[in-house]
Amino acid sequence: MPPATVHRSTFPVRYHESDQMGVVHHAVYVHWFEVGRTAAMKERGLDYAELERRGVLLAVIDVGLRYLAPARFGEEVVVETRITRVERVRVRLEYRVLSAGGESETLLCTGHSLLASVDPELRPIRMPADVRELFLEMLATED
Amino acid sequence: MPPATVHRSTFPVRYHESDQMGVVHHAVYVHWFEVGRTAAMKERGLDYAELERRGVLLAVIDVGLRYLAPARFGEEVVVETRITRVERVRVRLEYRVLSAGGESETLLCTGHSLLASVDPELRPIRMPADVRELFLEMLATED
Amino acid sequence: MPPATVHRSTFPVRYHESDQMGVVHHAVYVHWFEVGRTAAMKERGLDYAELERRGVLLAVIDVGLRYLAPARFGEEVVVETRITRVERVRVRLEYRVLSAGGESETLLCTGHSLLASVDPELRPIRMPADVRELFLEMLATED
Amino acid sequence: MPPATVHRSTFPVRYHESDQMGVVHHAVYVHWFEVGRTAAMKERGLDYAELERRGVLLAVIDVGLRYLAPARFGEEVVVETRITRVERVRVRLEYRVLSAGGESETLLCTGHSLLASVDPELRPIRMPADVRELFLEMLATED
Repeated sequence: MPPATVHRSTFPVRYHESDQMGVVHHAVYVHWFEVGRTAAMKERGLDYAELERRGVLLAVIDVGLRYLAPARFGEEVVVETRITRVERVRVRLEYRVLSAGGESETLLCTGHSLLASVDPELRPIRMPADVRELFLEMLATED
Repeated sequence: MPPATVHRSTFPVRYHESDQMGVVHHAVYVHWFEVGRTAAMKERGLDYAELERRGVLLAVIDVGLRYLAPARFGEEVVVETRITRVERVRVRLEYRVLSAGGESETLLCTGHSLLASVDPELRPIRMPADVRELFLEMLATED
Repeated sequence: MPPATVHRSTFPVRYHESDQMGVVHHAVYVHWFEVGRTAAMKERGLDYAELERRGVLLAVIDVGLRYLAPARFGEEVVVETRITRVERVRVRLEYRVLSAGGESETLLCTGHSLLASVDPELRPIRMPADVRELFLEMLATED
Repeated sequence: MPPATVHRSTFPVRYHESDQMGVVHHAVYVHWFEVGRTAAMKERGLDYAELERRGVLLAVIDVGLRYLAPARFGEEVVVETRITRVERVRVRLEYRVLSAGGESETLLCTGHSLLASVDPELRPIRMPADVRELFLEMLATED
C-alpha cells in the first residue's frame, strides 16, 4: 500500500495510444503524468482549471522518463503521483506507471516533472500561498 | 496535374502517428487536413496565426472522412486542399490524402471540413472582407 | 435515461486535449468515439484487444462529426455509443458526446463511424459469428 | 553553423500541437525528437521503417527534456539531432529545438533519448553491424 502522500489514478490504455511496435508510444506517458497530477491535485481540492482561471499556470520546465516495460492496449494502468519538492515558484513531482492487470502490478515507467508557476504571459511568479501550502501538505516525506 | 485552386502539401508520416494495426491511426488525418488548409492559406498570404491575433478564429463545426487505403510510416503523404464553398460566416474545404511513394500516387483518404468564423469567445461572426475575398479567389470552380 | 442499447462512458478531459482556442481540439473526439466503443464492447464481454489477438481487426473506414459546443479542460464528458447497423463485414456506430458538468448535460458533438472486419493484412473478412451476434444484440432499435 | 555530425530538420508547428496555454504542449517535443532522429538516419541512408522490416526495432528506454522557451503555432522550428554515444545494444541521441523565425534562432528545448535495439518481441538484441557502423560515423565528436 502506498503512503497517503502518493495519489493513484487508474484508467484503461486507449487504442490510439499504441504505435506500430504494438505497445504504447513513449510520448503518451507524458500525457499520463499530466492526468496523474491533475487528479492528485483535484483529490486535495485544487482544481487546476480553476487555478488557470485565477491567472496562475503551472508550466512544465523539465521532464524525465525511464521505460522499464511496455504498456499495451487492453490493460489498465495506474499512475502514482507524489510531490517531492516545493519551492517558491517551482514544484517537483515524481511518477510511477504500473500495469494494473493480473494479481500483481508491474512497474512500467518512472519519471518526474518540474513545474513553474507562471502568469498568463508565461512569466515566473510566486505560487499563491494556498497552493503552496497544499503542495507542502501533499509533499511525500518518505519512500 | 491538379488545377491551381488545389493546394498540395507533402510531408513524411511520423512514427507516433502509427498504431498497433501497423498503419496511421484514423484520427491523424484530421490533423493532416489542418496542416493542409493552414499551408494552403499561407501560400495565398493568409497567416492563420496572424488571423487569430486579429481576433478571428476559424472553428471546425463539421468533419467527415472516408478511408480508402492505409498510410504507413516510412512513406510521404500529400494532402490536397481546396475550398468548395464560401459563405458569410462559414467556409467548406475538401481534402484528398495520397501516398507520395513510388511512381504513381494512391488515394488514401477523402474528406471535408466546415469552418465557422468566431470571435475569441467562440461566438459566430462574419468573416472579415479580406479573408472572404481570399477564400473566394481560392474557390475551386472545377473538378 | 438512455435505452439499454446505449452505452455511456464518462471521463475527464485531459489537459493536452485542449488547443490554443481554449477548448478541446476537434480531432480528440475521434479518440473519444474509440474509447466509447471499446468500453461498450467490453461491457458486453467483447475485449477488442483479445479480438485482435484472434486475428480480427475492426478498421475504421468512415467517420463523421458535427460539433455543437466546445468541451473544456476541467469538465467531465460522457460518450454515448450505440450500434445502428450490422452487416456481414461492417458495423456502424453512432455517438453523442455530452458535457457531464452541472445539473444538466449539454450536447457537444454527434458523430458516427463505420468499421470493417479485416485480417491482420487489412483485407476484408466476414465478422466472426459470435461477434456479429453480439453486435446484433447491442443494435439500438429505438431512438 | 553546426558541425556535420548535427542534423537539422525544419518544419512548421501544427495547430493541434498547441494547448490552452497558447503554446506547444510539452509532450509534443518527444514527437519532434522522433521526427529529428528519423530524418537524421534517413539522410545517412538508414530508413528506419526498413530497419523495422528487417526485425530490428529501436525502442526508447529513457527520455529527458528541458524547456527554455515556448514554441508557438505560426512559427517554424528546427530540431537539431546528434548521436552522442553508441554501444552494442544502445544508442544515445541529443536534441536541441530552436525557433526558426526571425533573423536569429532562439533555443526552446534541449533533451536526449536513449534507444535500445530490440527484436519484434521487444527483447534486447545487438545492433546489426551496418547500423552500428553508421551510428559511429554519425557520432558527434565535438561541441
